[in-house]
Amino acid sequence: MASRVKPLSGFPEYLPAGRVVEQRVLDILRETFELHGFAGIQTRAVEPLDQLARKGEITKEVYVVRRLHAAEGDADDLGLHFDLTVPFARYVLENAAQLQFPFRRYQIQPCWRGERPQQGRYREFWQADIDIVGLGELATHHDAEVLLVMLEAVGRLHDELGLPRVVARLNNRKLMQGFYSGLGVDDVMGAIQAVDKLGKIGEAGVAAMLKDAGLDEARIKTILGLASIRASANDLDGFVADVHALGVANEQLDVGLSELVALTKTVSGRFPDAVRIDLSVARGLDYYTGSVFEMEMVDIPEIGTVCGGGRYDSLATDGRFTYPGVGLSFGVSRVLAPLLAKGVLTASRPVPSAVLVAADSEDTRGVADDVATTLRAHGVACETSPSAPAYGKQIKYAERRGIPFVWFGGVQGEVKDIRSGEQVKADAATWTPAAGDAKPEVVRVD
Amino acid sequence: MASRVKPLSGFPEYLPAGRVVEQRVLDILRETFELHGFAGIQTRAVEPLDQLARKGEITKEVYVVRRLHAAEGDADDLGLHFDLTVPFARYVLENAAQLQFPFRRYQIQPCWRGERPQQGRYREFWQADIDIVGLGELATHHDAEVLLVMLEAVGRLHDELGLPRVVARLNNRKLMQGFYSGLGVDDVMGAIQAVDKLGKIGEAGVAAMLKDAGLDEARIKTILGLASIRASANDLDGFVADVHALGVANEQLDVGLSELVALTKTVSGRFPDAVRIDLSVARGLDYYTGSVFEMEMVDIPEIGTVCGGGRYDSLATDGRFTYPGVGLSFGVSRVLAPLLAKGVLTASRPVPSAVLVAADSEDTRGVADDVATTLRAHGVACETSPSAPAYGKQIKYAERRGIPFVWFGGVQGEVKDIRSGEQVKADAATWTPAAGDAKPEVVRVD
Repeated sequence: MASRVKPLSGFPEYLPAGRVVEQRVLDILRETFELHGFAGIQTRAVEPLDQLARKGEITKEVYVVRRLHAAEGDADDLGLHFDLTVPFARYVLENAAQLQFPFRRYQIQPCWRGERPQQGRYREFWQADIDIVGLGELATHHDAEVLLVMLEAVGRLHDELGLPRVVARLNNRKLMQGFYSGLGVDDVMGAIQAVDKLGKIGEAGVAAMLKDAGLDEARIKTILGLASIRASANDLDGFVADVHALGVANEQLDVGLSELVALTKTVSGRFPDAVRIDLSVARGLDYYTGSVFEMEMVDIPEIGTVCGGGRYDSLATDGRFTYPGVGLSFGVSRVLAPLLAKGVLTASRPVPSAVLVAADSEDTRGVADDVATTLRAHGVACETSPSAPAYGKQIKYAERRGIPFVWFGGVQGEVKDIRSGEQVKADAATWTPAAGDAKPEVVRVD
Repeated sequence: MASRVKPLSGFPEYLPAGRVVEQRVLDILRETFELHGFAGIQTRAVEPLDQLARKGEITKEVYVVRRLHAAEGDADDLGLHFDLTVPFARYVLENAAQLQFPFRRYQIQPCWRGERPQQGRYREFWQADIDIVGLGELATHHDAEVLLVMLEAVGRLHDELGLPRVVARLNNRKLMQGFYSGLGVDDVMGAIQAVDKLGKIGEAGVAAMLKDAGLDEARIKTILGLASIRASANDLDGFVADVHALGVANEQLDVGLSELVALTKTVSGRFPDAVRIDLSVARGLDYYTGSVFEMEMVDIPEIGTVCGGGRYDSLATDGRFTYPGVGLSFGVSRVLAPLLAKGVLTASRPVPSAVLVAADSEDTRGVADDVATTLRAHGVACETSPSAPAYGKQIKYAERRGIPFVWFGGVQGEVKDIRSGEQVKADAATWTPAAGDAKPEVVRVD
C-alpha cells in the first residue's frame, strides 16, 4: 500500500515497548478508578460543532469533521472533542433517565485539538477523567474524594512504574470570587482569567491586564498579594490569617476559605506530602464554582499542569434539572509522551511472549504448536519459531525480541533461560516463568 | 454547559452496563492476542488524506479533518482512518528499522466511515486486528496461525460471555485467479469483485456484471459454479474433485487449492466445527494474494461478515523492501452494538462497587472512609454512601445500583448481602465477596 511516509507533528505514536508502558498506565488508572466505584464509559469521538464552539476561546482549536463528499447542505457539522467534559455533559443529559445519581464515572480516551504544533502541545492526546455528578445537589465531601482517588492513582504510577511524583495545588473559586467582590472588582471572572495567566506572563503581565480592565494600583497589588499566598497543611491557621491580613471581608470569601481548609485537612490526612494550598491556581474556564485543583510533577515542573479540575455547580442543565459535579482530568499523553520520547521509561521487552518454542523442522511444526498450546492453557504467553534453522539462530531470534526463554522438544521438553544459559527439563503443562518474566514490565532508565 | 442534546445516528454509545460488556470483550481479545505473542500498538486517528484516498471506491466514505480556523493554504489535509490496515502499513514503513520481523501486532481502536447511516452500518466502530508481517518473506503457516488465534478469541467470547458462535469461511485468491486465468478471463480482479457481490445482488446480478465485462454465458456459468462450491474439512478429496470437475487446468489454481486444503486441515484440527471452505468468499479489496477469510455468526447470519482478512504479498513497500503479511480484522461494534441494543447482553450490575459502605452521620464519615480504604487495600471495589440517611434508604441506594453488599459499622463491622438479607460480622481487612460478586459479570438474557 503506502509507499510514502509522512510523520505528523503533534500526534505522538509509540513503538511496541512504549505502548507496553502506556497500557500499564491506563490499566492502573482504570483499576484504581474501579476500586473506588467509578463506572467506565466511552463517548463517540465527535460532537455537534455548535456544542464544541460554545466556549469562546477554545473554538479555534477544534478539528472539524466532514464527509469527503458531503452533499450540498448536509447539516452534519461535527467536530472532534477537545476534552472529555463536554461529551460527558452531553452524555449525562442524553441518558439522565437511565443513570443513578450521584453518578460516578471515569473515561479514558483520546482528545484532539487543532492547534499549531509547539513544544509539549499535542493535537491528539489521551485524557483520563473522573467525575461525580449529582442530580440537583452534590455534597462537598466528594471534592476531597475525587482528589484522593486521583492522588492514589498517580501515587501508584509513581510507586509501581516509576513515573514522576505529583503534587496537587488547591484553591477555591468562592474564595477568589468573594475576595474580588469584597475588593470592589466589577469583572470578577475577568480578574480570575487574568490571574490564571500568572505562570505564563508573570506578575507584571497580569498587573497590566488588570490595569487595562480598569483596576487601580492598590487593588491590583491586593489581588497579586492573594495570588502569592502558599500554605502547607501544617499551618492552616497561619494561612487563614494571611488571607485576612489583606483586609478584605466578604461572606463568600469565608465560605471558600473554610471549604479550602476542610479539603486540605482531609486530603493531607491521607497524602501529607502531596497537597498544598496555592492561591495562584485559578483555572481559566468559567464553569468552576468551588474547589479548583491543579497537579504538576515535582521534579519536572516545566511540563506544567498534568492534571486539573474542580467543582462546578452546573455541569449541565436540561431546563428542569441541574447537574452539579466535581472532577479531575489527568493528561496521560502530557505526562507519558515526553518520558517515552526521552527513553526515561521503557518495557523489559517489546513483545508479550515469555517463551519462544523452537521448531525442529517444518514437518514437525505440530509438535512446537502443541507445546505452545499447552503453555498458553495456563496463561504462559508464547510464540513458536517462525522458521526452523539451527537452534543457535532461533535463540538469537528470541534474544533480539527480549524473549527470556526458549523451549526445546515436546511437551516433556527442556527450557533454556537464554540470559543465564541455564537449561532444565520441564513439562509444558505445569512450567511457568518467574513472576517478573511472565509479562513485559515497565522499566525506568535513569 | 450543553442544554440541547442531539443524538447522532451511526455513532453507537453504551450505558455503563453496556460498557462493562464491551470492556470484557476488549479484554478477552487483548488477553488472547498477547497469549499468542502479539504486541499491542495504537496509531493516531488521522492519516494524510492522500493515503486514505488511494483505494478508489472507499474515497467517498472518508471523514475529512480540518482545523476550524485553518489558514488559507494549510497543507494538513487529514482524514480519520476507516480501518486499521492502512495506518498499520504506514506504521510499519515509518518504524521498520526499529521493528523485529516477522512483526506480530494487534491493534484495537475505533475507526470511522463517513457513510450515510443505514441499518447495521456505523460511522464510528471498534475494530480488533491481528497481523503478522514479514520483511521480504513470510511463511504460509502464519495463515493458519492468525486464523487459529482469532477463532480462539471468538471462541472465548462465546464460551465466557455468551456471544454468538462464529464460523469461518475460507477461500484462496490464487485458486480464484488461477481458475479465472485458466478460463481465459482477461479482467481477473474485475471478476473477483463481481463475485464478491454475490451476497448482495445474487447470482443473476453477478452474472449481469460479468456479462457487461464481456464474458460469455459458458464462462459465467463456470465462474458461478466455482463460487457455489462449499466443503467441510471432512471431505477435502471430494472438494478438490469438485473444483477439477469444472474442467479448468492452471498451475496457480493448483497452488491455491493445495494451500486451501492444507489450511483447512490445520485449522479444523483445533476447531473442527468452526471452519468450512466456501468459494464464494472473495473479499473486495485488491491487495489479497492468497488465503482469504470471512467469519459470520452462526445464529445471526443477517448481520453479515463480522471478521475478515487474508494474505497479502505486499502490505507495504518502501522501494527497497516489501512487507508481506497475513491478518484478520474483527468487527467489535458490528457484533456488539446490535446485541447491546436488543438487550441480549448486559452486566450483572452497572457499577464496579461490590460494597456500599454505609455512613452513620456526616460527622463520622471518616469511619466509613476507613472501612472503604481497608477493603480496597485487598482489591474489593467499594464506595461510601454519599449521604447518611436511615439505613433502609442506604440499602435502597445500593439496590438501585445492583451493589450486592452493604457494610455497617467500622473495620470490625457487619456486612449484609442485600439479596438474601443475611447479615454477618466481618473484618474489612480480610473479608472478600464471592468470586461471582467481585466484579460486574456479563449476563446473557434470552
